[in-house]
Amino acid sequence: MNTIGKIFTFTGFGESHGTAIGGVIDGMPAGVRIDLERVQHELDRRRPGQSAITTSRKESDTVEILSGLFEGVTTGCPIGFIIRNENQHSSDYGQLREAFRPSHADFTYTAKYGLRDHRGGGRSSARETATRVVAGAFARQALEQLGITVTAYTSQVGDVALGRDYSGLDLCLIESNAVRCPDPAKAAEMEALIMKVKSEGDTIGGIVSCVIRGVPAGVGDPVFGRLGARLSEAMMSINASKGFEYGLGFEGVGLRGSEVIDPFAVDSDGNIGVSANNSGGIQGGISNGADIYFRVAFKPVATLMRDLMTVDCYGREVLLKARGRHDPCVVPRAVPIVEAMAAMVILDAVLLNRAARL
Amino acid sequence: MNTIGKIFTFTGFGESHGTAIGGVIDGMPAGVRIDLERVQHELDRRRPGQSAITTSRKESDTVEILSGLFEGVTTGCPIGFIIRNENQHSSDYGQLREAFRPSHADFTYTAKYGLRDHRGGGRSSARETATRVVAGAFARQALEQLGITVTAYTSQVGDVALGRDYSGLDLCLIESNAVRCPDPAKAAEMEALIMKVKSEGDTIGGIVSCVIRGVPAGVGDPVFGRLGARLSEAMMSINASKGFEYGLGFEGVGLRGSEVIDPFAVDSDGNIGVSANNSGGIQGGISNGADIYFRVAFKPVATLMRDLMTVDCYGREVLLKARGRHDPCVVPRAVPIVEAMAAMVILDAVLLNRAARL
Amino acid sequence: MNTIGKIFTFTGFGESHGTAIGGVIDGMPAGVRIDLERVQHELDRRRPGQSAITTSRKESDTVEILSGLFEGVTTGCPIGFIIRNENQHSSDYGQLREAFRPSHADFTYTAKYGLRDHRGGGRSSARETATRVVAGAFARQALEQLGITVTAYTSQVGDVALGRDYSGLDLCLIESNAVRCPDPAKAAEMEALIMKVKSEGDTIGGIVSCVIRGVPAGVGDPVFGRLGARLSEAMMSINASKGFEYGLGFEGVGLRGSEVIDPFAVDSDGNIGVSANNSGGIQGGISNGADIYFRVAFKPVATLMRDLMTVDCYGREVLLKARGRHDPCVVPRAVPIVEAMAAMVILDAVLLNRAARL
Amino acid sequence: MNTIGKIFTFTGFGESHGTAIGGVIDGMPAGVRIDLERVQHELDRRRPGQSAITTSRKESDTVEILSGLFEGVTTGCPIGFIIRNENQHSSDYGQLREAFRPSHADFTYTAKYGLRDHRGGGRSSARETATRVVAGAFARQALEQLGITVTAYTSQVGDVALGRDYSGLDLCLIESNAVRCPDPAKAAEMEALIMKVKSEGDTIGGIVSCVIRGVPAGVGDPVFGRLGARLSEAMMSINASKGFEYGLGFEGVGLRGSEVIDPFAVDSDGNIGVSANNSGGIQGGISNGADIYFRVAFKPVATLMRDLMTVDCYGREVLLKARGRHDPCVVPRAVPIVEAMAAMVILDAVLLNRAARL
Repeated sequence: MNTIGKIFTFTGFGESHGTAIGGVIDGMPAGVRIDLERVQHELDRRRPGQSAITTSRKESDTVEILSGLFEGVTTGCPIGFIIRNENQHSSDYGQLREAFRPSHADFTYTAKYGLRDHRGGGRSSARETATRVVAGAFARQALEQLGITVTAYTSQVGDVALGRDYSGLDLCLIESNAVRCPDPAKAAEMEALIMKVKSEGDTIGGIVSCVIRGVPAGVGDPVFGRLGARLSEAMMSINASKGFEYGLGFEGVGLRGSEVIDPFAVDSDGNIGVSANNSGGIQGGISNGADIYFRVAFKPVATLMRDLMTVDCYGREVLLKARGRHDPCVVPRAVPIVEAMAAMVILDAVLLNRAARL
Repeated sequence: MNTIGKIFTFTGFGESHGTAIGGVIDGMPAGVRIDLERVQHELDRRRPGQSAITTSRKESDTVEILSGLFEGVTTGCPIGFIIRNENQHSSDYGQLREAFRPSHADFTYTAKYGLRDHRGGGRSSARETATRVVAGAFARQALEQLGITVTAYTSQVGDVALGRDYSGLDLCLIESNAVRCPDPAKAAEMEALIMKVKSEGDTIGGIVSCVIRGVPAGVGDPVFGRLGARLSEAMMSINASKGFEYGLGFEGVGLRGSEVIDPFAVDSDGNIGVSANNSGGIQGGISNGADIYFRVAFKPVATLMRDLMTVDCYGREVLLKARGRHDPCVVPRAVPIVEAMAAMVILDAVLLNRAARL
Repeated sequence: MNTIGKIFTFTGFGESHGTAIGGVIDGMPAGVRIDLERVQHELDRRRPGQSAITTSRKESDTVEILSGLFEGVTTGCPIGFIIRNENQHSSDYGQLREAFRPSHADFTYTAKYGLRDHRGGGRSSARETATRVVAGAFARQALEQLGITVTAYTSQVGDVALGRDYSGLDLCLIESNAVRCPDPAKAAEMEALIMKVKSEGDTIGGIVSCVIRGVPAGVGDPVFGRLGARLSEAMMSINASKGFEYGLGFEGVGLRGSEVIDPFAVDSDGNIGVSANNSGGIQGGISNGADIYFRVAFKPVATLMRDLMTVDCYGREVLLKARGRHDPCVVPRAVPIVEAMAAMVILDAVLLNRAARL
Repeated sequence: MNTIGKIFTFTGFGESHGTAIGGVIDGMPAGVRIDLERVQHELDRRRPGQSAITTSRKESDTVEILSGLFEGVTTGCPIGFIIRNENQHSSDYGQLREAFRPSHADFTYTAKYGLRDHRGGGRSSARETATRVVAGAFARQALEQLGITVTAYTSQVGDVALGRDYSGLDLCLIESNAVRCPDPAKAAEMEALIMKVKSEGDTIGGIVSCVIRGVPAGVGDPVFGRLGARLSEAMMSINASKGFEYGLGFEGVGLRGSEVIDPFAVDSDGNIGVSANNSGGIQGGISNGADIYFRVAFKPVATLMRDLMTVDCYGREVLLKARGRHDPCVVPRAVPIVEAMAAMVILDAVLLNRAARL
């Protein structure tokens, strides 16, 4: 399925070596003035080839909006867009017509469809995440007009980690380094680790943290529409993701209930809110007005810059020569994708919430 | 939203202190002979009041099937069922009409709907998970006829944990103790910890692990239908869940890509498969034929057996007296719920997969 | 698929000779005070056995609400309900275990599922429409609080027909006769025709008209969410329906465009609206504030009170004895079902419309 | 909502005067070899400016496929495509910035969204139907490989009508005249009527009939997934449609049940089927193997070649000068759109049917 969302939806298409990637944003509320430069900026954040720690592959990723905007404002009608592919070295992939790269989707796509576009991973390539960034950029501009912001950053690379508490971080520093970590000292350690791994022709994983602020209480649905479930589904649809947690997550299982209570309190304006936020801003699947924060774990990806033995579709052993140009660590480039997915989920939930009462 | 699934769907209803809980299973394939005793058995596994480590609250949880079966076989038509509520001590909840219990959904439901059924948490109560167990029990019987099994167990309570590798465990021992841990020694430690916590009037969290065997390669969809995303969404919709991971999950981020490759190999029958399974049976969102394994983190729940200060809907401070009968640890009773959700997701994905090729 | 709707949804279950029929209403906005007697009243309107012109089969159709209401007000949580089956003469259907009744769904269900519940048509029986009436009754009470009303009536039986223009009809007379026609003279003709057909052991068809008032402009979506498409889908899901038209429908194809223009005008309050309503209240798929009116054609049903030759599942010729107790004309009992379906569609579209603008 | 379908889905975008129209076809089964010339041919059938009886507006409608095909075969991954807009005379619409054209969607879009793209009707223009034709063309090529064909034709223009029985028609003659009527004599009458109406600066309506052959028994779902409901929804989403009927439709209401029975019979190969087809190939919402036939009524469209008085968004009276280039009768160009919608619905239902049995 290539559609996500219920009211605000995004339907994407495109393979890494096809003519273009793109998609349709539907359910975008009318009346939002869109800054297209900011949309392009989000794409540029995700683009490879920007620094030494990412792949050297160059993609210009210029988005062309085809509908749904009139005089710069959303009409409520669907927004179609494309990003043309360029700079694919199809010759990098000639040997893959029959061979299955280990820990890639070559085998599983063939098992499912009986055939596949072998160039660059086809639809399984992370190239399509650029389309999600466009959709998320539109969602984000709507959310900002509602006072809601989404901020993600790299909180771990390999074993180099920030503490879980983000309150002491200056989130304005995220874009100040290639790793997108708001702690400059840790960022330097992370970059060094990535360069070391890269020089070994290997890859390393990491964690992206995200904080969503300004979501009013009441957003999300009970049971199967729980906000944590929707965020989790969205994040776990990102290439290389292997885990999701919000609030105290896996770390919280060893604590006592009495240690993680989030008491209610009344502020000076008489508004009810929580005075602690172990929950991560969600209770019973519905937002309570506090920050929503979560973490997404990304594995070390499988494309190594080394030769590998594998089998092909006939069951024969073949040697795959190290080719292509790949990321030693996907986490810095995953940061804008996590933000985009979060923005889409939150906007959809905000719109759905308008139907909660008569 | 109270529906999950795309072809095989489950739509549930019911609050803990309403007349009944129940639901509709739709898209169940025709022609499956159903053993209703096994369905009731799954409900009995989930039921509270079975041992000293769970709540003393007694619910008989007898399911009544109302449609969709004819002479014991599924007709393909929707299966409606109910489980009548009994043994609710509504007087336990009188003080909650206006007060918001900390770390519960009382406040968020009120923020969303403007009102709520305050008795026992209403729809936010874990009582509705009984309905999921029924739907999962039907899904499971269909999956078994396709050679697919789903097995969950408690792998961690507080800091008492099994190792991640399940290959050395005898999964037949899961039901041999109240904790549902297949390692008897660890189970005893876990039980002791739970009793200790209970005696303190407190609660503790834990982790449920799950292994799905026999899923053929090709199940799941790319991008937004990724099998990990679907499982994640399902698990994160369970009360008290705070995290999901599959394959090496969060632990894998510190490893090198070269350490976690899953090479392909050909078995003696000429079938292609993986010779290692760091991925957790899913690549590019699609199953590869190996075991699918994942873990779900459950927080220590918020209902303590202690008095608490909180605020009510008017912003006044109120004292909540410790009342009700609650679980010191939800994890053992979460095991059958995790299995039920997994069965539903896998059956839906198996059915969807039939449309992949012409 | 047994679910209709996008935000306000209804999922039904149940066969005519199963234990019970019922369903789950989801997405009902919170805060609506529900008069359950009126819900039961709608069921009573649909019930057979009320007059000489309908079947003599008696069903008490008492609905039991199981969740989603608290102190008489909707909580926003799903509303589950059941209606227990009684008074089924299963012996009426013994001969149908293997035989396929002509123009019924016996054959098609067997072709699809490989088996079927042969008693009384199983899920294909119109018995399940009682569940739709319950869901529609809830929707209607929400709509009334928004100033929207739904009124259906019999406008044609066989060749006895009212004119298309309803403005001269007193819709308060609909329940004054068994046919549910607001023109007493025509109603008498229709009843006479039905009795004549009944005495011949035959059946006759007819048309139900419906008027929806008070829908504000802007409800409905362009393209695939067009309000006429949604109403059409809902009506064409009713047993025995064979056609749907709104506005001038099929009759309008012979007219000139200049004859059917709906000019805009400004009323005394300065509100823009139409001064004619050939469109039927919908333009471009979206309501314009004028009455929405449509017609649904119902065929003469296939269950005759005569013996019939047919084939069975082995291809053998068999004689079906006339049995059972059936309607000579389904139209009078279809009136409350049409209203229920219309109410569900309109409420869903009204709720969806809240997401149209930021 | 701009998506139709459940497994085989189409999501469209684009306005008549935007940069491009296009869409995403998702759920197209893998392994279908696609003849892109035939896809373009379907677009050419729909294109205006081909004959004296349609609008003189010229659009080249060249489709560009962007993904989802590899070496000419569908991969199972989503198929994205665009058709760039050209030849829009935006100056034709300058006066419409504030004025509401009667019987158009200008007013309702403004009521819904608060703003609109006033050029050429924006998203409400029939221009977007070109995208549906592309999606339908793909669906049709898959269906043909399953032995299923879809054929539509003009059966009525104004009062000039073919009989309902299509068995005597030579459907190969459909493309032999501009009206797309397979009876040459009637076609000539229809063309004459259209030219007459055109000379008067007026418009006229008509009916498109459609026959679907080769659908095996068992396709479609009971209750809300009834095949007649799905076809109806699809057809009533087409611009200017006002009515849908299948089988005997509205005409059948005056007949007796005994006159319209479709008896079962066994053919020489021992297959069970119907020996008459009053039902239109669908019983209980599920196909029975006989031809599925239906009719769609199209109104005379509102764009006249005459000056009109109307109001603008400020409630002021304005005179609209006759401008633009419009169809005197939309029916001939609706024929390929009806076929496209039918193909999409049937393919989706065929794919869904694969999940009916274990």
